[in-house]
Amino acid sequence: MTKSFVVKGNILYCEEMGKIKTEPNGYIVCIDGISKGVFSDIPEEYKDLELYDYTDKLIIPGLIDLHIHAPQFHQRGTGMDMELLDWLNKRTFKQESQFEDLEFADKAYTIFVDAMKKSATTRASMFATRHRPATLLLMEKLEESGLFSYVGKLNMDRHCPDYLCETPEESVSETIRWVKECGKFERTKPIITPRFIPSCTDETMMNLGKIAREYNVPAQSHVSENLSEIKWVSELCPNSRFYGDAYNNFGLFGGDVKTIMAHCVWSCDEELEMMKNQGVFIAHSPQSNTNVSSGIAPIRRYIDMGLKVGLASDVAGGSSESIMRAMVDAVQVSKLRWRLVDQALPCLTIPEVFYMATKGGGEFFGKVGSFEQGYEFDAVVLDDSLIPCPIEMSLEDRLERMIYISDDRHIKAKFVFGEKLI
Amino acid sequence: MTKSFVVKGNILYCEEMGKIKTEPNGYIVCIDGISKGVFSDIPEEYKDLELYDYTDKLIIPGLIDLHIHAPQFHQRGTGMDMELLDWLNKRTFKQESQFEDLEFADKAYTIFVDAMKKSATTRASMFATRHRPATLLLMEKLEESGLFSYVGKLNMDRHCPDYLCETPEESVSETIRWVKECGKFERTKPIITPRFIPSCTDETMMNLGKIAREYNVPAQSHVSENLSEIKWVSELCPNSRFYGDAYNNFGLFGGDVKTIMAHCVWSCDEELEMMKNQGVFIAHSPQSNTNVSSGIAPIRRYIDMGLKVGLASDVAGGSSESIMRAMVDAVQVSKLRWRLVDQALPCLTIPEVFYMATKGGGEFFGKVGSFEQGYEFDAVVLDDSLIPCPIEMSLEDRLERMIYISDDRHIKAKFVFGEKLI
Repeated sequence: MTKSFVVKGNILYCEEMGKIKTEPNGYIVCIDGISKGVFSDIPEEYKDLELYDYTDKLIIPGLIDLHIHAPQFHQRGTGMDMELLDWLNKRTFKQESQFEDLEFADKAYTIFVDAMKKSATTRASMFATRHRPATLLLMEKLEESGLFSYVGKLNMDRHCPDYLCETPEESVSETIRWVKECGKFERTKPIITPRFIPSCTDETMMNLGKIAREYNVPAQSHVSENLSEIKWVSELCPNSRFYGDAYNNFGLFGGDVKTIMAHCVWSCDEELEMMKNQGVFIAHSPQSNTNVSSGIAPIRRYIDMGLKVGLASDVAGGSSESIMRAMVDAVQVSKLRWRLVDQALPCLTIPEVFYMATKGGGEFFGKVGSFEQGYEFDAVVLDDSLIPCPIEMSLEDRLERMIYISDDRHIKAKFVFGEKLI
Repeated sequence: MTKSFVVKGNILYCEEMGKIKTEPNGYIVCIDGISKGVFSDIPEEYKDLELYDYTDKLIIPGLIDLHIHAPQFHQRGTGMDMELLDWLNKRTFKQESQFEDLEFADKAYTIFVDAMKKSATTRASMFATRHRPATLLLMEKLEESGLFSYVGKLNMDRHCPDYLCETPEESVSETIRWVKECGKFERTKPIITPRFIPSCTDETMMNLGKIAREYNVPAQSHVSENLSEIKWVSELCPNSRFYGDAYNNFGLFGGDVKTIMAHCVWSCDEELEMMKNQGVFIAHSPQSNTNVSSGIAPIRRYIDMGLKVGLASDVAGGSSESIMRAMVDAVQVSKLRWRLVDQALPCLTIPEVFYMATKGGGEFFGKVGSFEQGYEFDAVVLDDSLIPCPIEMSLEDRLERMIYISDDRHIKAKFVFGEKLI
């Protein structure tokens, strides 16, 4: 299939934080999967290319999910009245242990990948389970789907139930074996994934830092999600000045290892400074932070500081895989934080969360998340004519409405790196 | 059409706050629109009735929306980055003024009523606009839909744009004329609806209190939604001890006039005490209170005090007409309130918000919102088999998942007072 074509429609995207550019019924030229830019008319040299005509529809960059737990997909929207530890012990760990069974994993991941394919998400960074074979199975399915993703086989060798706990040796050897086996994938890349500091021994963390460098693999984990977790980490890692410093001591906090850290609800100043200096990506997971009662991350402050922030569904802490929903949640919780906690930090706006959901998170994947020239062409075409409405609206209002109330029925087409998936 | 039949399926409902009763593949008998109760087998005397067989589906009471602005439906999910006053002046008031035009109103309300019919809501209390003819048109469409509703022609004769402002005489005479014209409806009842204290003169408020009594019509409005509004009301009504007292001084705050008050985010102790003593219904509108940055109502406290609390979408302060979504929002904001404001008030749980969404709000409509014997038979049948899932779940988990992630596609059937609408 050729990956060179032109698409026509109402184009909305960001070049910079907080500003949406629009091109009413304009054109994007895609050559070999790469955008040549946005035009009000088709440039002469591209007039003979195939045209996908989405006149009057909305065309936006594909959405980026920086943090999602694939094996928890079937738990979404259940057990949400439990507190975090109960939820992990009574639900999540048991659920994850089933991925030992490849037949179960096959069923569960087939459904998950299908849902991701139908969503507005084009790229995601995922947690799998500790199981190497099931993780590879997930990656095979993702590779086949056409989506681009990072997937992590989890490491967990302490403070978790016996039925999920690895030995330090096993954790490391399985990780190396898995990283090598991932060489066969084009769109699906491994990412080093210690579950979080409390579930990995120092020995394993040290080895993971080495593996990340030796095999040139990025890293992801959780940081500063809730206050009791932070206290626990400070006890477990007395030589760390703060939670993120514990990852940093093992070489898994940005710098030469590209890193995503989920949550950052309660990051201290030093942690933020280190994230900034070392280019750590923050995966803001507003719904999850609400569902497990963690709090509200001061994202306004992080973007003012120039930190790299993307959005995340964090299924199944989050109940929905929709990054549309994550945008709304991000705006909504920022309003509550403004009202209830700190009126010095104004709420987030739709143009800001739209940036985070596209170019902000997209940067982790390279030149991704915009339609500027040179960006990999990921796009979602939204058909809002399915919402009957007696009033005329601006393109910005139509986009906002889609962000607030659309679902997979409104996705008319979806492209990833120039390949049409829907 | 006979309104006597039996339905079979997994039945979930509340008799009391915070407790969900379940009857796996049980039966509800409906005679002339009234429930005869829930049974594990069909009682002998009802064996010959028509059977609606929803084996393995979930059957719940119809959901109740205690506060929704019908004319704002087409604004939902737009302009949400604006502050309240901008949103009212630049968007809402202009939008509402279009309902002067009956042709526009016909289009707009047709779409709205269709959406309500497709939703899980069976009964609602609605705000229309100040326009009598358009309000009657909305009521005709609702009557035809089979839904049960209270609908209010708004009163607003001060502090609003000229193009929407009534004179005090007009406000009262139009209201009386409208109330009389509503006599023709069976399912659709008028409700006295001063927009809120700032938009009605004392003279009009006094007259509305009289009309409510003379014609035996209930009342609804907004109270204690945000702090600057409360301050404004205290200036406008120097003789009132608190916001709710201003309504009370005009006889529009419960007691012999059945009353719904939306929001109650910042109600003072005296206001709460008065609401309790006079049986005022609180329409908790969590999404709206978030979207317009009002805050989080301490609902745990209200239910502990024994106040009457139901849920509301408050479209278009809320972006979704779904009371499923309102249940989730109510749980979620209660978690944030617990974390950020007051750890003495535990978060709400699914069984609690399910009660509010059914029997809690249903009480405003009579014996509505449960399947107990004597209750009007409103039911929604949910088909969660459309969500592919490799794990077995309890009925409670399946209900919770439907609350968190279902949409109108999962509604297999819907009954209102024994009539099957879907």
